[in-house]
Amino acid sequence: MNKETLIDVQKRIQPYIHRTPVLKSKLLNEISGVQLFFKCENFQKMGAFKIRGATNAILSLSEAERQKGVVTHSSGNFAQAVSLAAKKLGIKAYIVMPENAPQVKKNGVKTYNGEIIECESTPEAREATAARIKDEKGASFLHPSNQDEVILGNGTAAMELLEDHPDLDILMTPVGGGGLIAGTALAAHYFTENCKVIGGEPMVADDAYRSLLSGKIEYNTTFNTVADGLRTHLGDRNFPIIQKYVDRIIRVEEDEIIEAMRLIWERMKIIIEPSCAVPFAALLKNKEEFKNMKVGIILSGGNVDLSNLPF
Amino acid sequence: MNKETLIDVQKRIQPYIHRTPVLKSKLLNEISGVQLFFKCENFQKMGAFKIRGATNAILSLSEAERQKGVVTHSSGNFAQAVSLAAKKLGIKAYIVMPENAPQVKKNGVKTYNGEIIECESTPEAREATAARIKDEKGASFLHPSNQDEVILGNGTAAMELLEDHPDLDILMTPVGGGGLIAGTALAAHYFTENCKVIGGEPMVADDAYRSLLSGKIEYNTTFNTVADGLRTHLGDRNFPIIQKYVDRIIRVEEDEIIEAMRLIWERMKIIIEPSCAVPFAALLKNKEEFKNMKVGIILSGGNVDLSNLPF
Repeated sequence: MNKETLIDVQKRIQPYIHRTPVLKSKLLNEISGVQLFFKCENFQKMGAFKIRGATNAILSLSEAERQKGVVTHSSGNFAQAVSLAAKKLGIKAYIVMPENAPQVKKNGVKTYNGEIIECESTPEAREATAARIKDEKGASFLHPSNQDEVILGNGTAAMELLEDHPDLDILMTPVGGGGLIAGTALAAHYFTENCKVIGGEPMVADDAYRSLLSGKIEYNTTFNTVADGLRTHLGDRNFPIIQKYVDRIIRVEEDEIIEAMRLIWERMKIIIEPSCAVPFAALLKNKEEFKNMKVGIILSGGNVDLSNLPF
Repeated sequence: MNKETLIDVQKRIQPYIHRTPVLKSKLLNEISGVQLFFKCENFQKMGAFKIRGATNAILSLSEAERQKGVVTHSSGNFAQAVSLAAKKLGIKAYIVMPENAPQVKKNGVKTYNGEIIECESTPEAREATAARIKDEKGASFLHPSNQDEVILGNGTAAMELLEDHPDLDILMTPVGGGGLIAGTALAAHYFTENCKVIGGEPMVADDAYRSLLSGKIEYNTTFNTVADGLRTHLGDRNFPIIQKYVDRIIRVEEDEIIEAMRLIWERMKIIIEPSCAVPFAALLKNKEEFKNMKVGIILSGGNVDLSNLPF
């Protein structure tokens, strides 16, 4: 995973993704005292950056592998991303989802022709079911965050942002499974002199923050965060990258996440999901520290259930 | 009001407004069977096209007039537009609002230093209070929709859209007080060969539709529409323009407005207010008629109360 790999990945996935816009907001600059550059992956295909990693992972498979399809377990954006990427590339996607997953998530997968395989709502059942499909169908397993091809694909969002604004002081992302911040950190490392990468994480699911402190992958015991995409833990592929290249992780309270989300909705008139608001909440919490700096924020996604908003 | 006036107005207000982006959506093109071009005035300063007309109206005043300030009666976007335009130009804005106007609207005006003068919640009280301020302060009265300078300013949104996409077959806007559709119709008339202008209007507040039928300005007796910006009626300045240059008005039901709004929120991840969804609802209702055409829609504004959404 070096500079050339990232350049190759960017070229390879380009035809299948949007080059998303970078938005600025005078009002939010005034409120924060920071020069903000929002990379709008909420406008990405299927509504989140996840299509980048999913597309790259599938394109990395051999012809023979592709013919047998891909399988993942996810009830979130990665399920839709794999379904859409597989559809575009004309291959089969098997999506393992807990039987109690919200209908809106299931519909998302069906829209893109993903085949849903239901299982019990435990991590063990998910993994066992995905392993069974892998065996039965010969499908390749794609991990939502802990796989090199996924990490590299995710890094292309930051690469585009840095092409547009090469002089950023800071790059910020949310931290869930670690796939986005790891890819972003690689991009910052290989394509800037000294742009720091900082993560935002919910206080009640601060596994990554604790992992950086202890030096080993920590897990969450509470998950009760509005940022439903950030309940997962880091993995052995992305953790070493995060240890090496991420400056630090800032933790935020639930009300800070909701307030940051509301500010972006009201002031920028764009829809972002709660997980996506976490780095902006982290910035607002520490705004004095970032005064007058140029800060790029990856707005990770915009898939929300409009009937169930936190405000 | 000819081609040269419009060009002058565009030049004059340019430093004070955003040139808003034109967004496309493959998904909404597929759903509608139409090639859609959305002019995003929801991203405009203060969140709506109204800043265009307000700015032009103030810039049209003499130095002496400006020093005495401006007055308007509005509890909607025009109140904020006049407040912001006046603030930018360093003059005083008096905003007459009904005493029962929502706090969120009052706060919007205060953000931009507008001075609120409260009155009873009747059209008579509003007009009498505005007239009193006009007399007492010597302030110039600005009308939200029925004033040439406001109509011309509003027309610049369509001018920009037509500069970006000169080959539109249709231009659509909502119809409330008539100021936006009149300006848009002038732009289409002077800057295209045969681009038709079509309005969208709520069935329960279809005064403009009936006005075009009867040939005189009609009024609403019901106002119970989610599209709260479209409850007003046409005026003697904009009605003749609408009669002359608008092709027709399509009426839509309340559930069609909400469905169109939801589609834009969910698919485009942008926030638009209910009034703004009305032309898109009108298009969807008649999509067969517009098949494969290039249709520009002015997304008029994005100011919604997030605590009080219709879904």
